[in-house]
Amino acid sequence: MEQLRQQLGEIEAIGSVMALLQWDQQVTLPAGAHQARQRQVETLASLLYKMQSSEELGRCLERAREIDPSTLSGMERATIREAYREYSRVIKTRESLYRRISGLEVTAQATWEQARRENRFDLMAPVISEWISIRKEEAAVVSPGMDPYDYVLDEHERGSSVQKMDRMFERIKQPLIELLAKIKQPDNDTPGVAFPMEPQRELARKIIQDMGFNGRLDDSVHPMTVPVSPPSDVRITSKFIENNPRFGILAAIHETGHALYEQGRVEEPGLIALRPLSTGMHESQSLFWERMVGLSREFWDHYWPGSGLAKHGVKTGDGFYRYLTRVMPSPVRVEADEITYPLHILIRYEIEKGLFDGSLSVTEIPSVWNAKMEEYLGVTVSNDAQGCLQASLDIHWSLGIFGYFPTYVLGAIYACQLFDAADRDLGGLVRQNIAQGMFAPLREWLRDKVHSIGRLYETPEELLQVVTGKGMDPDGFVRHLTLKYSEINLTTRD
Amino acid sequence: MEQLRQQLGEIEAIGSVMALLQWDQQVTLPAGAHQARQRQVETLASLLYKMQSSEELGRCLERAREIDPSTLSGMERATIREAYREYSRVIKTRESLYRRISGLEVTAQATWEQARRENRFDLMAPVISEWISIRKEEAAVVSPGMDPYDYVLDEHERGSSVQKMDRMFERIKQPLIELLAKIKQPDNDTPGVAFPMEPQRELARKIIQDMGFNGRLDDSVHPMTVPVSPPSDVRITSKFIENNPRFGILAAIHETGHALYEQGRVEEPGLIALRPLSTGMHESQSLFWERMVGLSREFWDHYWPGSGLAKHGVKTGDGFYRYLTRVMPSPVRVEADEITYPLHILIRYEIEKGLFDGSLSVTEIPSVWNAKMEEYLGVTVSNDAQGCLQASLDIHWSLGIFGYFPTYVLGAIYACQLFDAADRDLGGLVRQNIAQGMFAPLREWLRDKVHSIGRLYETPEELLQVVTGKGMDPDGFVRHLTLKYSEINLTTRD
Repeated sequence: MEQLRQQLGEIEAIGSVMALLQWDQQVTLPAGAHQARQRQVETLASLLYKMQSSEELGRCLERAREIDPSTLSGMERATIREAYREYSRVIKTRESLYRRISGLEVTAQATWEQARRENRFDLMAPVISEWISIRKEEAAVVSPGMDPYDYVLDEHERGSSVQKMDRMFERIKQPLIELLAKIKQPDNDTPGVAFPMEPQRELARKIIQDMGFNGRLDDSVHPMTVPVSPPSDVRITSKFIENNPRFGILAAIHETGHALYEQGRVEEPGLIALRPLSTGMHESQSLFWERMVGLSREFWDHYWPGSGLAKHGVKTGDGFYRYLTRVMPSPVRVEADEITYPLHILIRYEIEKGLFDGSLSVTEIPSVWNAKMEEYLGVTVSNDAQGCLQASLDIHWSLGIFGYFPTYVLGAIYACQLFDAADRDLGGLVRQNIAQGMFAPLREWLRDKVHSIGRLYETPEELLQVVTGKGMDPDGFVRHLTLKYSEINLTTRD
Repeated sequence: MEQLRQQLGEIEAIGSVMALLQWDQQVTLPAGAHQARQRQVETLASLLYKMQSSEELGRCLERAREIDPSTLSGMERATIREAYREYSRVIKTRESLYRRISGLEVTAQATWEQARRENRFDLMAPVISEWISIRKEEAAVVSPGMDPYDYVLDEHERGSSVQKMDRMFERIKQPLIELLAKIKQPDNDTPGVAFPMEPQRELARKIIQDMGFNGRLDDSVHPMTVPVSPPSDVRITSKFIENNPRFGILAAIHETGHALYEQGRVEEPGLIALRPLSTGMHESQSLFWERMVGLSREFWDHYWPGSGLAKHGVKTGDGFYRYLTRVMPSPVRVEADEITYPLHILIRYEIEKGLFDGSLSVTEIPSVWNAKMEEYLGVTVSNDAQGCLQASLDIHWSLGIFGYFPTYVLGAIYACQLFDAADRDLGGLVRQNIAQGMFAPLREWLRDKVHSIGRLYETPEELLQVVTGKGMDPDGFVRHLTLKYSEINLTTRD
């Protein structure tokens, strides 16, 4: 076990260096140094791959799997399970797929950028087709007999499947479309608050400090959390936009949610089961703080007085809360509100499913995309750059990432359930705590129930069962949104 | 040749990642993350060592050495020469010394810190003894028959030797001691200028931009230049001290001199002969800008008007020049002026030489140190923390670095020669250019003659011969200082 941890610890150390390179690239790298950075990343990636696929690691894992499990801690057993799963995947895909994947990765991002710039989906189509073919072969090699879309869903969210996702989306699709129809749209297409960047940044710094984040907040093109060496070195960024405090402040809260998960981990090099459980569970932490806490009336009742917002025409905390919770269908996912966000994801899920089961061809993506945008969100897409090429952040398909999008909705559902469970465990005082800017009880509850637990349980369903007493609950999520937005909608705006 | 460059390029890439880790550690790393950083550094260092000592590299070098030299460029031939030299050193010391060195490195820095804190040289003595024994064995293994102190001198400054250093110090020792005796000491022990940190930083930023530096200037505990991926990613730091503009501004100019050397390199991955020539030549670039340019009357005639210094009681550029060029013997090397600095180095050189030839034992260091400080500088050392343990930066001996100190003086001598040669080549207009803040001609001259030449010539002597028409010239250095400080000394201070 010591030897295994030693080897996994070295792999972890190289991974953490690559995380630092990523942070540095977005925050401090000089403009002309991208080629040199590329050489660093490629050299490390190739060393990392050698370590991850080494015979030495294989032998070490075989020996570890022969240890009597009763002599190991739960976290040690989970570490062997996770490391073996990962090693098997690497070994099984090494011969057939590694070169194909590496080659495509080199060109894909540039192709996507050109396609967006020139509004030409036809440039992207062959890349997407090749990725789907790669993922299908990967599924066949790693998990023979498994449905390929089940395989990619399960890769991102252990225990997930088409059947489960279908059932989940079925529970939320119609209710959200109906809720959306009932909500008054704001008169002004681009409601703003004349709040300059510096006070936005100051307010965000105060909030994330109150939340208990300990680390750097920098600016970058896209907000991100970089767990360089969690828990001791976790860095976040946000992006502040003049007179649009919604984006930068909510992004800072969102990233802090991710960061607290990483900072709530136990530090034990090589014990990789201490890693965050899944993509969806990670997203549940960011959305817990962004939506359940940050998008609450109590939160802004607390922060409005010291925020300086009064000087900029926002006369009450409630006024700012209403500004932040406005619902406004738009073609862009990353700017979407709580109600329309899951519908953006649903469109992507339905398209991916069709691409994998063969009922949809890649060339049909634009027309299907636009039709669904119209049907679910009432949004007319004027061109593919605004539509299926998503002008800002939906790079997933061009990088071969399928089965990932649903985790954004899973995160929102988990967040809602965890919030209710926390409120139950903390004596129903959570909203009162928020109104006082007192976040320690919530944070410690999350650390205790989620952050420090890592991958002790194999799936998010198991963890939810233990912590909340039931599995994933989309109905509760719909009830929560219906209640919240009916209430906002019924009272008068200032 | 292509294969060799590929392998050397990968080694270079890992080295550049380690440079980034070092920069990050001094500038952005959170306080609690040093253990995690240590794991990253150790993992990378061990991978790097494997690459540097791999049989594959050895085979590749053997094949490269068989290539007909006439089919190679001068820089390619120099790359093979440098890479073979480095590989031989690594291979020859691998068996006998690698573990001994690694082990000592782990404990040495902590021991030095404790020794300084508790003012106990006796704690350091065994560490220094062990390092000397290691370096002697290294010399015996790598260059059998060579004098061990010659060997370490040559490691830092190719072509250097005890004989040459003796001759050099002999030319400067008495003249500098006599010059020092003639210079009026300032009445006040701690002359300061009431210049706050922010305008210091602003002035430094303006200067380094005018000099042509393109990159980040951050704060750190000790000023440094980190060539992460030169020429495209070079970062510097300085340290600004309230009401002591001398330290922070001169340090920023000094580091920019180092940085311009790195930014003046040609970018060709794996062609390692493009690296800076030697430690002394690197120091010549920092001192060129710090002392020949920054410590000139013309420089401050130009910068004083826009500096804001007038508001803080500095009434002329000349006044600030006199403040910066004050001569004041003190026990601390890193704060020393141009006149006393070489004498600080001489003390270290004489002690190192004695330790290596056996005429001095490690336990005698404190008494010899203090006697020489008194004799050369007229400074009474009150305790070892201020003396041979050097409270701030002289960590060299505890890390096993011997033969390095003389390069500080060599750099000053080279700088002086290069300045004269530049003035000759640029039509005697250099001082006039400085008075106009016009640094491009000087910088381009240095790029052309030094920065872009790398290690094409094997030794600094050869390069000096080509560029200035003569070898190292300590007499010219003494003449320059005598003239400069007689002039300052003879005119009245304001």
